[in-house]
Amino acid sequence: MKYHFSDRVPKTDVDPVGNILKVAGDPKVMSFAGGLPAPELFPVEQVKKAADKVFDTKGPSALQYGSSQGVPELRNVIVDRLKIDGINTDVDHVMVATGSQQSIDLTGKMFLDEGSVVIVENPTYLTAVDVFRSYGAHFVGVDMDEDGMRMDALEQALKDNPTARLIYTIPTFQNPTGRTMTLDRRKKLLELAVKYDVMVLEDNPYGAIRWEGDNLPSLKSMDTTDHVIYMGTLSKILSPGLRLGWVVAEPKLIKKYMMMKQSADLHTDSLAQYIAAEYFAENDIDEHVQAITALYHKREQIMMAAIDKYFPKNVTHSNPEGGMFLWVMVPGVDDTQKLFDAALERNVAIVPGDPFFGNETIPGTFRMNYSNTPEEKIDDGVKRLAEAIREVMA
Amino acid sequence: MKYHFSDRVPKTDVDPVGNILKVAGDPKVMSFAGGLPAPELFPVEQVKKAADKVFDTKGPSALQYGSSQGVPELRNVIVDRLKIDGINTDVDHVMVATGSQQSIDLTGKMFLDEGSVVIVENPTYLTAVDVFRSYGAHFVGVDMDEDGMRMDALEQALKDNPTARLIYTIPTFQNPTGRTMTLDRRKKLLELAVKYDVMVLEDNPYGAIRWEGDNLPSLKSMDTTDHVIYMGTLSKILSPGLRLGWVVAEPKLIKKYMMMKQSADLHTDSLAQYIAAEYFAENDIDEHVQAITALYHKREQIMMAAIDKYFPKNVTHSNPEGGMFLWVMVPGVDDTQKLFDAALERNVAIVPGDPFFGNETIPGTFRMNYSNTPEEKIDDGVKRLAEAIREVMA
Repeated sequence: MKYHFSDRVPKTDVDPVGNILKVAGDPKVMSFAGGLPAPELFPVEQVKKAADKVFDTKGPSALQYGSSQGVPELRNVIVDRLKIDGINTDVDHVMVATGSQQSIDLTGKMFLDEGSVVIVENPTYLTAVDVFRSYGAHFVGVDMDEDGMRMDALEQALKDNPTARLIYTIPTFQNPTGRTMTLDRRKKLLELAVKYDVMVLEDNPYGAIRWEGDNLPSLKSMDTTDHVIYMGTLSKILSPGLRLGWVVAEPKLIKKYMMMKQSADLHTDSLAQYIAAEYFAENDIDEHVQAITALYHKREQIMMAAIDKYFPKNVTHSNPEGGMFLWVMVPGVDDTQKLFDAALERNVAIVPGDPFFGNETIPGTFRMNYSNTPEEKIDDGVKRLAEAIREVMA
Repeated sequence: MKYHFSDRVPKTDVDPVGNILKVAGDPKVMSFAGGLPAPELFPVEQVKKAADKVFDTKGPSALQYGSSQGVPELRNVIVDRLKIDGINTDVDHVMVATGSQQSIDLTGKMFLDEGSVVIVENPTYLTAVDVFRSYGAHFVGVDMDEDGMRMDALEQALKDNPTARLIYTIPTFQNPTGRTMTLDRRKKLLELAVKYDVMVLEDNPYGAIRWEGDNLPSLKSMDTTDHVIYMGTLSKILSPGLRLGWVVAEPKLIKKYMMMKQSADLHTDSLAQYIAAEYFAENDIDEHVQAITALYHKREQIMMAAIDKYFPKNVTHSNPEGGMFLWVMVPGVDDTQKLFDAALERNVAIVPGDPFFGNETIPGTFRMNYSNTPEEKIDDGVKRLAEAIREVMA
C-alpha cells in the first residue's frame, strides 16, 4: 500500500534518536544516552498503597470518563507544588496533560501555523523540535552560554522575526545542556517577551532536582502580563510511566487547551490522576525528591571526576547544579556521528548533538545522562568514551 | 492578553456539546445525553487485584518510561481480542493509543492537509468531526439508512471527490445512530475503497455489546490490500477512565503512527497498560461483556417500550441491536435546539443532532443514550421528553 500522508509526516522512516536508544538498550552497551529516572527509587509500595485506597474509596470514578481539565484532587496537589516555583495560583489556572509531551503538542497545535517562527535555545529538547516542526514551525535558535540563553542573541532574534509566535525555554537544568538561566536573564527574557509581545512556553521538568545553588524563581512567577505558559510534570519526581503533566495559564487560555485536549485524547487517565493525588496526600514528596537529588548528585560527581581524569583537557562541558544531563563539546570534530560510532565500538552510548538543534548544529557536541547508570559503572564508561573522543580528535 | 492562535483553534469559545453535558450533569436533570458506560458494572475489585499484582511483580517497569508502541503484554491481549472481529494478526500490527480519541487524532494528523476531503457517515461521531476539522478537513457526508452508509451515495461521493483522503466509519452500533452496516455493504465499501484508492478508518468501540443479530465481520478482517486502519478500545468493555485504545495496520504504517504518537504523548500510561493486561489474564472478559450487554439491553428495551408508548407515531427512530445509542427523527422541526430546550424545561437532556454532522444537518434529529440511566427512571424521562416533542411539533 502506498499511503498519501499529510505534509506533517516526516518523509523519512529513519528515526535517528529511536535508533540510538535501540542500540543503547543492548545490555552489553553502557548507556549515557537515555533520559530515564533511576527506577530503583520509584516508590512502588507507596504508589500501590495509594492505588488500593483509590480503588476502595472511589473505584468507579477512577475507571469512568473524566474532565478534560483533570481530576480536582490532582489539580489541588499541583497548585500546592507550584508554590515551590513561586507560582501562587488556583485550580482554574491548571490543566492536567498526558505528560509534558502533550503540553508541548497542544501548545504547538494552538499557536503555530505553517511557517510560524518558534524561538528555541540552541540546543533544545529534541522531541519539542519534532512536535513544533509537525505544526509547520520555522526555528530560530538562540545561542546559549553557561548562564543559559544569551539575551542579546534573543533580542536580535525577536527583532529579526517580529511575527515570532513562541519562545520555548527550559530555564532550569536544561535538556540537553544541564545549564540554568540566571535570574537577571529570566527578568530580561520576560521584559523582551512583553516588549515584542511573544508568548513564552516555560518547561520545567527538572527544577526540583537541585543539589547546588539557590532555587531561582520561575518565569511564570514573575509574569504579570500572561505572556508565560508554564509546564510541569511528575515524570522526574514520581513516575514518568503514569504520564502526568500540567499546563498553567490564565483560565480563558486553559479553556482553549481543554478544547484541544478533548480532541487529542478526551482526558488524561483518571486512575493515574487519582493515584498520584492520593500518593501526595499520604507521603512526603520533598523527602522523596531529596533522595532522588542525592543519588543523581552522587552519580554526577562520579561522572565529573571521571571526565576530569580521562577526557582531553580541551574538551569542555557544562557543570549542572541539578537535573539529569550534561553537555560535552569536543573541539575540531566536524561530524558528530563519528563520536557516536567510536563510542559504540567501545560499547558506550551517548546522544550526538545534532537532533537537539532547530536548524544549524554545533558539531562535536553530545549529551550525557547520569541519572540511570549505577555508580560503579560510570568511571569505566567515561574512560572508554574518552578513548573514543581521542580517536576521533586524532 | 490577546493571543494569536493558529488557524486550527476554533474562533469561538462556545462549546455547545460541553454546555449540553454540563447541564446534563445537573443532578435534577435526567440525562440521556452523555455516552457513559454504567459505572456500577466496573469490575473495581478485579482491577484492584490486577493492579496489586502489577505492583508486586513489575512495579518499576509500570512506573518507568515505555515504548510508543505499547506494552507487549497488552498488545498480546489485543491480538487475542481482535480474533472476535475476524482479524488474525500479530503484535507488530498493533499500537496502543491513549484511548480511541488519540487514534482518531493521530490519523487526522497523518493523513489530512488543509482542504483534504474526509468522507463521513451522515451523522457521525462528533469529536471526530472536531479533530478532523482541526487538521483542515473538508467533510463530505454520506447519507445513511437503517442498514448504515448508503453505498450509492458513497460511490457518488468518491466520484465527486477523487482526492478524498479518508473514509471514516463506525460500521457497528454507530455513534450517534446505533445503526449497523450490513455485510453486503461492508463488502461494497471495501470494493469502493480499493477502486478509488482511499484509506478507510474503521472505528469499532461498541461491536462487542450485541444482544441481537449475528456478529458481522469487521472491514479490516476482509481487507486484503491494507486500505483499512482499524481502531478498538477498552472504554466500553472494561473502563474508559484508563484511556486505552489501539490501532491495527500494517507494520510500516504502525511505525509512522509511533513517530506521531511520540510527538503527541511519548507513550500511553504504562501502569494502566500493565493493569489491563493483568486483568485479562486473570478474568473472563466475555462473561463481563455479557453482563454489560444484558444490562444495556434491558435499559434499551425499557426505553423502546416507553418511546412506543409516549412518542407521537410519526416520530421515527433507529432500532439498535447493541451498543449505547439510538437516534430519533422528529418530522417538521426546523430548529433542533428547540427540542433540547423544551426537554430541558422538563429536566431531561438529549444531544441535538447538529454537531454530529460534518456540514448540512438533518433538523429534528437527536441522540439518546440508555447505558447510563437506571431502569426505574427511564420510563418517566421518556414520558417527559415526549411532552417536549409534542410541544415543539405543535
